[in-house]
Amino acid sequence: MKKAVLAYSGGLDTSCCLKLLEDMGYKVISVCVDVGLSKEELKEVEEKAKNLGVLKHYTIDAKEEFVKDYIFRAIKANAMYEGYPLSTALARPLIADKVVEIAKKENAEAIAHGCTGKGNDQFRFETTIRIKAPDIKIIAPIRDLNLTRKEEIEYAKKKGIPIPTESKKYSIDENLWGRSIEGDELENPDFIPPEEIYSWTKNPAEDKEEEIVEITFDNGVPVAINGEELNPVELIKKANEIAGKHGVGRIDIIEDRIIGLKSRENYECPGAVLLITAHKALEQLVLTRDELRFKEIVDSLYGELIYKGLWFSALKEDLDAFIDKTQERVCGTVKVKLFGGSVRVVARDSKYSLYNKEMVSFDEKDIDQKELAGMVKYHGLQDMLYYRTKLLK
Amino acid sequence: MKKAVLAYSGGLDTSCCLKLLEDMGYKVISVCVDVGLSKEELKEVEEKAKNLGVLKHYTIDAKEEFVKDYIFRAIKANAMYEGYPLSTALARPLIADKVVEIAKKENAEAIAHGCTGKGNDQFRFETTIRIKAPDIKIIAPIRDLNLTRKEEIEYAKKKGIPIPTESKKYSIDENLWGRSIEGDELENPDFIPPEEIYSWTKNPAEDKEEEIVEITFDNGVPVAINGEELNPVELIKKANEIAGKHGVGRIDIIEDRIIGLKSRENYECPGAVLLITAHKALEQLVLTRDELRFKEIVDSLYGELIYKGLWFSALKEDLDAFIDKTQERVCGTVKVKLFGGSVRVVARDSKYSLYNKEMVSFDEKDIDQKELAGMVKYHGLQDMLYYRTKLLK
Amino acid sequence: MKKAVLAYSGGLDTSCCLKLLEDMGYKVISVCVDVGLSKEELKEVEEKAKNLGVLKHYTIDAKEEFVKDYIFRAIKANAMYEGYPLSTALARPLIADKVVEIAKKENAEAIAHGCTGKGNDQFRFETTIRIKAPDIKIIAPIRDLNLTRKEEIEYAKKKGIPIPTESKKYSIDENLWGRSIEGDELENPDFIPPEEIYSWTKNPAEDKEEEIVEITFDNGVPVAINGEELNPVELIKKANEIAGKHGVGRIDIIEDRIIGLKSRENYECPGAVLLITAHKALEQLVLTRDELRFKEIVDSLYGELIYKGLWFSALKEDLDAFIDKTQERVCGTVKVKLFGGSVRVVARDSKYSLYNKEMVSFDEKDIDQKELAGMVKYHGLQDMLYYRTKLLK
Amino acid sequence: MKKAVLAYSGGLDTSCCLKLLEDMGYKVISVCVDVGLSKEELKEVEEKAKNLGVLKHYTIDAKEEFVKDYIFRAIKANAMYEGYPLSTALARPLIADKVVEIAKKENAEAIAHGCTGKGNDQFRFETTIRIKAPDIKIIAPIRDLNLTRKEEIEYAKKKGIPIPTESKKYSIDENLWGRSIEGDELENPDFIPPEEIYSWTKNPAEDKEEEIVEITFDNGVPVAINGEELNPVELIKKANEIAGKHGVGRIDIIEDRIIGLKSRENYECPGAVLLITAHKALEQLVLTRDELRFKEIVDSLYGELIYKGLWFSALKEDLDAFIDKTQERVCGTVKVKLFGGSVRVVARDSKYSLYNKEMVSFDEKDIDQKELAGMVKYHGLQDMLYYRTKLLK
Repeated sequence: MKKAVLAYSGGLDTSCCLKLLEDMGYKVISVCVDVGLSKEELKEVEEKAKNLGVLKHYTIDAKEEFVKDYIFRAIKANAMYEGYPLSTALARPLIADKVVEIAKKENAEAIAHGCTGKGNDQFRFETTIRIKAPDIKIIAPIRDLNLTRKEEIEYAKKKGIPIPTESKKYSIDENLWGRSIEGDELENPDFIPPEEIYSWTKNPAEDKEEEIVEITFDNGVPVAINGEELNPVELIKKANEIAGKHGVGRIDIIEDRIIGLKSRENYECPGAVLLITAHKALEQLVLTRDELRFKEIVDSLYGELIYKGLWFSALKEDLDAFIDKTQERVCGTVKVKLFGGSVRVVARDSKYSLYNKEMVSFDEKDIDQKELAGMVKYHGLQDMLYYRTKLLK
Repeated sequence: MKKAVLAYSGGLDTSCCLKLLEDMGYKVISVCVDVGLSKEELKEVEEKAKNLGVLKHYTIDAKEEFVKDYIFRAIKANAMYEGYPLSTALARPLIADKVVEIAKKENAEAIAHGCTGKGNDQFRFETTIRIKAPDIKIIAPIRDLNLTRKEEIEYAKKKGIPIPTESKKYSIDENLWGRSIEGDELENPDFIPPEEIYSWTKNPAEDKEEEIVEITFDNGVPVAINGEELNPVELIKKANEIAGKHGVGRIDIIEDRIIGLKSRENYECPGAVLLITAHKALEQLVLTRDELRFKEIVDSLYGELIYKGLWFSALKEDLDAFIDKTQERVCGTVKVKLFGGSVRVVARDSKYSLYNKEMVSFDEKDIDQKELAGMVKYHGLQDMLYYRTKLLK
Repeated sequence: MKKAVLAYSGGLDTSCCLKLLEDMGYKVISVCVDVGLSKEELKEVEEKAKNLGVLKHYTIDAKEEFVKDYIFRAIKANAMYEGYPLSTALARPLIADKVVEIAKKENAEAIAHGCTGKGNDQFRFETTIRIKAPDIKIIAPIRDLNLTRKEEIEYAKKKGIPIPTESKKYSIDENLWGRSIEGDELENPDFIPPEEIYSWTKNPAEDKEEEIVEITFDNGVPVAINGEELNPVELIKKANEIAGKHGVGRIDIIEDRIIGLKSRENYECPGAVLLITAHKALEQLVLTRDELRFKEIVDSLYGELIYKGLWFSALKEDLDAFIDKTQERVCGTVKVKLFGGSVRVVARDSKYSLYNKEMVSFDEKDIDQKELAGMVKYHGLQDMLYYRTKLLK
Repeated sequence: MKKAVLAYSGGLDTSCCLKLLEDMGYKVISVCVDVGLSKEELKEVEEKAKNLGVLKHYTIDAKEEFVKDYIFRAIKANAMYEGYPLSTALARPLIADKVVEIAKKENAEAIAHGCTGKGNDQFRFETTIRIKAPDIKIIAPIRDLNLTRKEEIEYAKKKGIPIPTESKKYSIDENLWGRSIEGDELENPDFIPPEEIYSWTKNPAEDKEEEIVEITFDNGVPVAINGEELNPVELIKKANEIAGKHGVGRIDIIEDRIIGLKSRENYECPGAVLLITAHKALEQLVLTRDELRFKEIVDSLYGELIYKGLWFSALKEDLDAFIDKTQERVCGTVKVKLFGGSVRVVARDSKYSLYNKEMVSFDEKDIDQKELAGMVKYHGLQDMLYYRTKLLK
């Protein structure tokens, strides 16, 4: 008996995969890795899998691991890709990792995923799988049969796979770090998204009251909201809830996919936007200018690695060493105003603050201003010489 | 008769300078470079100068030059420094340049400015002056006498210089590109700024109605708002007005000054935030990923050069060549939602768009998905090999 | 009659392609683009093609274009990839471009090349072809049939294609900018290459006499050697000859191919090493520190674009604008000592020199040293504050 | 009794300082930190100090610390600044650190150094001193009195300080990591340095015989030469000796000093050039392409921090974390050919090698070449679209 382990979400793509694997002669073991679903949703996924005839179904609670080992790293790195906080991208290596574990345990011959050939997730899943289980066979039925959505729906009908109702015209992916909405006219860069696509964030224009929130960080990681210490999973949920209430975290961008296609993408990531904004503000207070400037470069690269599915990579490990060192002093509090979709930092404090009142103030003599005249004089020295040589041209 | 030309704003610092220059035996020629004042304000500055006994006063209208040669370059470069759109920094080289012109025309022996020794403007003024007039003497009376604000006030009283009233506890600088507010408790990074410091932006929390604005760009530069073509100065004013109405553009950061001090800074730059946000969104649509990634680095460096007063520098000229080349295709429209301090891009369009509907859509067969399997397989190849060698350790 | 245009070098790979195309039913038009062959070699290639039965053969002299539009750009950018001056990489887009021209002229249905699927040239050829002729069919017979070298030799025997003699155990590619040597035990990173693989460079250890060479640059481009003005092609040949005589330009590296494989590569690029070394030395004299620092990043990226075959790309055009602006002042002379494989700059001069004798010398009072005390005092200011906060930990 | 601790080298500058400090009313404690002197030289320095009347003289052997904690870090970072391996720059923070220790032990009121106001060392000394002893007074007599070399010589004569003989027209600084030669006509960028300035390296043109050397690295640090394990100090000495014998390590550059002056500099750093060349070659074999590319940026920044005297800085600590992580796999051997001033890598080996024979070879079927066709097809995709939009212009 040939066994294949399938990363299963309950959606149309992976349900078709399940049946296509059977067509290929596999017995299917479905795995649903929970990075932010409700109990009801998990239950539903399991039932769906069983109805479709899986050999076995696994539900794996990876929420805490997701927050502590993935989301917290993303916060320390202010991880973004072209404005997107990487919610889906961040979960993929973790899901793949768990699926590999099951495949090893079950002695499966193959691992399957439902990604298409135009998207990013195929890279994220397969790179992780190849690293963790170099010799296992990988099957991507949708991609390898080059199926369109229309063809999938036909196949689904034939196989008795429940078809999403008309209303579900969007393709949704969500986990603790955010929600993505794709499909239909949203693909058009010049189409203004309708209010109905949002689910985690209230309409900003209907916000009635400003709220000030205080986030506390320790070693670069959020530990409390409004003074209340929360465990990692609870903290992320709370951040989503508070920021979402004020319409914060709606993201609408043109994104460059791994293979080079530009696509228009919509996301809701209220907690991510809130926490990363606050985190950056605290870094401004405690890191030196040289650190800030270089960390910008590191952060940008880190975001790109996550996007490309290179979470398990040598460079990512090296960057972690750099980032962890900088975060030792990222401890303190940040106050943020939330209203109408905007998040504005208004105050920050830290025992590692590099702000020095006496030196900065115009009322103090801590610095003898005269001493600066020399530094000013030689500022741009080479450019002065350059402008002299220009007269030669 | 020794003549000194003074960059004069009518404020306490430059008024003290005026008198201190007289103390040093100079006849003073005051110059007010208009980069965004009203007629009344200009009139007031002139009268103040004359009352304090200047030999001559110049008012120079540099608004159009400021927008076309400075602000528009800043927009093309998405120029920011640690979140600050560089309003004051951008005007300094232009003001210095104009002051040098007058100094040459008047055959003056010296140029004077009112900058202190802790701030950035001394670098910006003097570097430009030294480049444009390498042999002229530069006098910075406040810095060279190491005066505190208290000492200045005492001196002002003695010399009959009008003292700002109690209410004016903040030090303000404003021009077409933004407004900065400093002083008093605002210096404290953990103090939440009171509503009273803002003048260009309405309280976001009091916003009642969302507005969609369409900005049109040509060669990287804004040319119309809501379809109405505007001349450069009018366009910037309009952008400030619209965005300010929705509380957009309040900026509250910890800034690293040139000499290395960290200071807490508050700005209002509604137009800058609106236009740069829209500009970046259009770039996402028309520039290749490689261009976007590298232009981020160029933009960041460009902002730093402006901040440091290196507007007239060899590198800035080189970067302009790069940026101008990229901007040839930054033509099109961007639609933005303004509400409650937030500015969100919701649509964009351009004839140079690199978005390709047929390729991206999940309903099309323009791309044979199977072809991608190979690319996916070799993605992260070296990292797979790396993980193999890790087993050796 | 289906016609295919083949980029033909006369080697085993492209000769097999010629016959494989015939097998597929094509009439073959062979094109040999001359980027640095002798008349005899060109003659030989043509005869080979005709003997193998081509419909038509083209020989295109692209030497001058190669030097002026490609090599000179590479010099301005100090273009290197991991230590390799990009000789082969630089010629590929030009060759592809010429082949496309012929294909259009001949109304061919397809363009073919002899690249394998493990190498870089397939990317370089095809990207250029797809840009210049988006709709033409591209055929890569060796890759698409997954042939090994052994299989190729068998096929060649069957088809009467002359087989390289035993002695030719290396695969060679050469043009005006350099020579690459691959194959056999050279693939092993730990194998010391034998003297026999080199053809352009004398054995360094047998050098008897040091030579000083003077290179003159104008706008970043070499125009004379030892004071003698030379046309572009002659200048490059002369540079290869002089540097080769002293064993300069042997390069032995581990290179990261586009698909991610590491391979050991050997090159001889005497002229490239000589000219780029001299060019960099002149830049040190005339460019500001800020320009040098940033141009290093640009240069490195430029080298990578060439390596990846992205010569015709938006970013490359943008970088050219930057580079050209910097090169306006790269005019002057550089003296270099050549001996035993080493190339050492010993003197340089330019009318745009930013060196200022009076300021630098310890015998002059042009700078009042005291003035620097302030600058020194605030150097590393934030790090001093950082070390204070460290005591808190 | 006011005590000042003086960083003393025995040269003209520091000898004048000694007497100038006495003029200011200080009792002087001289400290000579040994980072690579012979016993005789140390003895001579001590006698000179005593003859000039110091209160006390310290000789501190810091050679091992210099190699292990400074030079080895420089190797791991391939640390260079504009082609200069940072020999002097690297020793300054260590010397300053030791001087601070003595100052604390002796309860001195001040620390003095002999640096001028045009050079780099004032930054390197003082930044370290201010970090390690924020409250101590720093005296730089030469700079603060703005003395020229001529004035120093006059003062020295008056005070009975031995004047260097005519022959000593160059100013030399040397330690285990290299030797710098300044002064006289060497300042002129277009003057070819005479053979007499070199002392560690033989004239390359007189080299008679090629030598192959094997360097063994462990965790990024050299541990053996030609298979012989050596302690750190001996290894560096040996490397200098072997490379120097072949004229390797002569460096002649235009350098951008911290304050922005360009100066022509000559160095001899045979060991540094040998070891860094070998180290980089090994990194090419074991680090992924992404790591190599990013480490280049880190290395370049690291070199700049050392040059600027920011050894003790927050960013340097962060970069160390990154670098140390990458170096875990930099273990193995590198073979290098030395002759006539040239150093050429010819072989390298490591158990962490990412080179994979089966995949690379053209004789193997480990990779199905066909699979690459898709990757090639989408290479440069956006640039193809860009060229299409160009037709619109």
